[in-house]
Amino acid sequence: MKLPKSVNILDTTLRDGEQAPGVVFTVDEKIQIAQRLDKIGVNSIEVGFPRVSDAEKVSARVIKDLGLNANIYGLSRVLKEDIDALIDSDLSYMHTFIGTSKLHRDYKLKMSKEEILEKAVYAIEYGKDHGISVEFSAEDATRTEEDYLMDVYKAAESAGANILNVPDTVGILFPSAIKELITKIKENIKIPISIHCHNDFGLAVANSLMAIESGASQVHLTINGIGERAGNASLEEFVVALNIAYGYENLKIDTTQLFNLSEFVSKLTGIKIPINKPIVGGNAFAHESGIHVHGVLENTATYEPISPEMVGHTRKIALGKHTGANSLKSKLNEYNIEVDQKQFNQIYNQIKTLGDKGKTITDADLKAIAITTLGKANKESIKLLGLTVISGDTVSATATVKLSIDGKVEERSEIGVGPVDATLKAISKLVKGYIDVDLEEYNIDAITGGTDALAEVFVITSDSEGNKATGRSTQEDVILASVDAILNSINKIIAIK
Amino acid sequence: MKLPKSVNILDTTLRDGEQAPGVVFTVDEKIQIAQRLDKIGVNSIEVGFPRVSDAEKVSARVIKDLGLNANIYGLSRVLKEDIDALIDSDLSYMHTFIGTSKLHRDYKLKMSKEEILEKAVYAIEYGKDHGISVEFSAEDATRTEEDYLMDVYKAAESAGANILNVPDTVGILFPSAIKELITKIKENIKIPISIHCHNDFGLAVANSLMAIESGASQVHLTINGIGERAGNASLEEFVVALNIAYGYENLKIDTTQLFNLSEFVSKLTGIKIPINKPIVGGNAFAHESGIHVHGVLENTATYEPISPEMVGHTRKIALGKHTGANSLKSKLNEYNIEVDQKQFNQIYNQIKTLGDKGKTITDADLKAIAITTLGKANKESIKLLGLTVISGDTVSATATVKLSIDGKVEERSEIGVGPVDATLKAISKLVKGYIDVDLEEYNIDAITGGTDALAEVFVITSDSEGNKATGRSTQEDVILASVDAILNSINKIIAIK
Repeated sequence: MKLPKSVNILDTTLRDGEQAPGVVFTVDEKIQIAQRLDKIGVNSIEVGFPRVSDAEKVSARVIKDLGLNANIYGLSRVLKEDIDALIDSDLSYMHTFIGTSKLHRDYKLKMSKEEILEKAVYAIEYGKDHGISVEFSAEDATRTEEDYLMDVYKAAESAGANILNVPDTVGILFPSAIKELITKIKENIKIPISIHCHNDFGLAVANSLMAIESGASQVHLTINGIGERAGNASLEEFVVALNIAYGYENLKIDTTQLFNLSEFVSKLTGIKIPINKPIVGGNAFAHESGIHVHGVLENTATYEPISPEMVGHTRKIALGKHTGANSLKSKLNEYNIEVDQKQFNQIYNQIKTLGDKGKTITDADLKAIAITTLGKANKESIKLLGLTVISGDTVSATATVKLSIDGKVEERSEIGVGPVDATLKAISKLVKGYIDVDLEEYNIDAITGGTDALAEVFVITSDSEGNKATGRSTQEDVILASVDAILNSINKIIAIK
Repeated sequence: MKLPKSVNILDTTLRDGEQAPGVVFTVDEKIQIAQRLDKIGVNSIEVGFPRVSDAEKVSARVIKDLGLNANIYGLSRVLKEDIDALIDSDLSYMHTFIGTSKLHRDYKLKMSKEEILEKAVYAIEYGKDHGISVEFSAEDATRTEEDYLMDVYKAAESAGANILNVPDTVGILFPSAIKELITKIKENIKIPISIHCHNDFGLAVANSLMAIESGASQVHLTINGIGERAGNASLEEFVVALNIAYGYENLKIDTTQLFNLSEFVSKLTGIKIPINKPIVGGNAFAHESGIHVHGVLENTATYEPISPEMVGHTRKIALGKHTGANSLKSKLNEYNIEVDQKQFNQIYNQIKTLGDKGKTITDADLKAIAITTLGKANKESIKLLGLTVISGDTVSATATVKLSIDGKVEERSEIGVGPVDATLKAISKLVKGYIDVDLEEYNIDAITGGTDALAEVFVITSDSEGNKATGRSTQEDVILASVDAILNSINKIIAIK
């Protein structure tokens, strides 16, 4: 197999990625993403579609002015006005496109083959005349008649295009078909070929790799694979696959930033990273089943294709239904918890029982279970004795909380921005005198259904020594669930101290 | 390209899928999933790993007793005890495996090549002697020395295995490499070859398809691609890709149930379907950008590889930042809202402004905007005049709500399972006399951060004529956000009546 000497990465998170329904980046967000993309080493960044709005023009110009290493591209149709908008934004790299398939010709453009070809040539020449480097896309290339597609690409090459891009606009090709198409184009064209894959059938990354194998030297990618419909090929998956599966070493991308960048884009777009997403998902390096954990504890490579460190991620050994004795032993060793066989069995059975109920057991849960089993949880815990909350549109949310702390009864009321905030503030202040804990995280899982659906609250508290404990509660009343979760968490910290 | 006459689908959602950290199915859930898988037409279902626990045995036996059309498989290591557990569960199809790569031999199994081969042969013969149909997996086949792998497969074939499975255990192969491997195995082996791909680099579906292209005749898949780490090849993606991209017509799967099945499994596992997931994600058939919406309105095929109906999904034209005039015109036409050019521009600008703020605009939002612009929203809306909520651990959550409805002031108090429930119950009863609306959906987006983080509440209400309106509010106080969202939604229904 012959891979090209260099593979160019054009990231289009800010253009195709932003076209995903519901995704909008502010100018400032575009700048931050562009800077991070440049820092990890992508070659080109497509920052937007200047003709769409003034905000698009502003963000393109501002990013151009940052003086990044990457080439800054803007999108344009083959219209003079679009290209002028791009020139107005001070860009010197243009990605221009026109649909070439029969579907696009007949229904969208209502133009003949000849008209489309002419317009493409016009746009390329107009761009080149203005000193712009031009990448040309035959939109829906993969559903275009092959002869006509070759005519279009040859004309584009003759008109002076610098790169020809092949968009699999609705993601219908599979790797062998990509190979055939790219090979054919390479036979007809001398300038660099680029590939732009959509993920409608889940094949975007594989198709992009196959295009590179077949002679393409540039690939369009997005962070987290966001883009129109099912999105584009994921940058993080493509980069790692080319590097590791193919053993390709000429890609100058700092892979250790991939996890962070993925999280950053997820936060800005509101599109959550699925837990089973390759490379960056929460489970990408998580192991729970006995056989896998056993293997990973002997040598992580048994069940991991790469180390999590390579992409800035972390390994997670989870305890649950499929946990084997090996996982538990390793966890107990990690925390220097010594147990005899009987105690081990008791802890193991508790973990299994929780696991059978579908619970994931965190490290803090395990520690608390172990310490209780060992009879070392002798300090008295904190209990809720009473709670009254008043809130409304004009009254400030007020909570009165009565706790039993270390055997003493303490009571206090607090005002908050809402009823939950007021309640947890009161608890926090009551507890402060006894143990110094901070609420590190407070999450409510999305509630779907009705107003009487169960609310699942998850909290993490920590003490000054860095001990962290989780607390979890599921109840119909979100305030009571919050109280239960936080007391559960604080009591674990007390138990393990 | 020569595809096999028939392609067998073995679904392993209930086995490899359940091994995903945090995923546990109850016996009843396993039964329901198995029934649905059987109904859509999968050939085989791997239901679990009987040796793991009594619950696993019970679920295997119960599913076997359902008398489904699909072959019911259980997993076993190459140990007598594992196979006995499988026989105990009354299963007659076994999937047995042992690691063959150097990593697995040296670190996990600590066995020589010869020992592993012997144990594999023993297990296959033991199974066959008990009248069981045996599928054998050389675990981590894709990292096993090719010569040794062939020896193992040949020995397994001679021992009487019915199917040989090729697991890409850590998902490191890419399509061309899969082709080479499967072609090689086919040269050495006469019995059917199966493929089992993991998705660590996002290549599982493409690799599975390439294996089929190269002579394999069975594929292991899971619903939503759940499984160890980044999961397995997605059933829904594989099925549609083989059917549409390859034009393969011999797959007897009822694709119209794919969306429902995906949602069902998502609900049971708690693993949300990412919005940009191919085939079943919320955006798989959603269009927002002007150019795409324009194309789709002329002919949906311009920007859709398949119709959403094929998989039981629905198309969504979203309005937002990238909305063009065409999308808006089509929407207004759809609702028979006639506007002049000035009104059109007003509505268009409002949509663009909301879109620039990152909001997705629903159909009901659009209708309400249009009607307000046309000055037809002449009915007086419902306003909150007062709210007091009391709740706690012993007091029943009680809300007193004062509303202005059609100019009249109405007041009422209600008890609920929590403060939000009580409040919305009171509103609902107050409004009932004036307009008949039901709360169809009530969602709180996950709250992350602290107790003073913003809560985003989203509701849908409907009237008896089927009008549906959304309401959304983001505030620190979850009760006030809920009230605001529901009144917002009801007022839209009133406006468009």
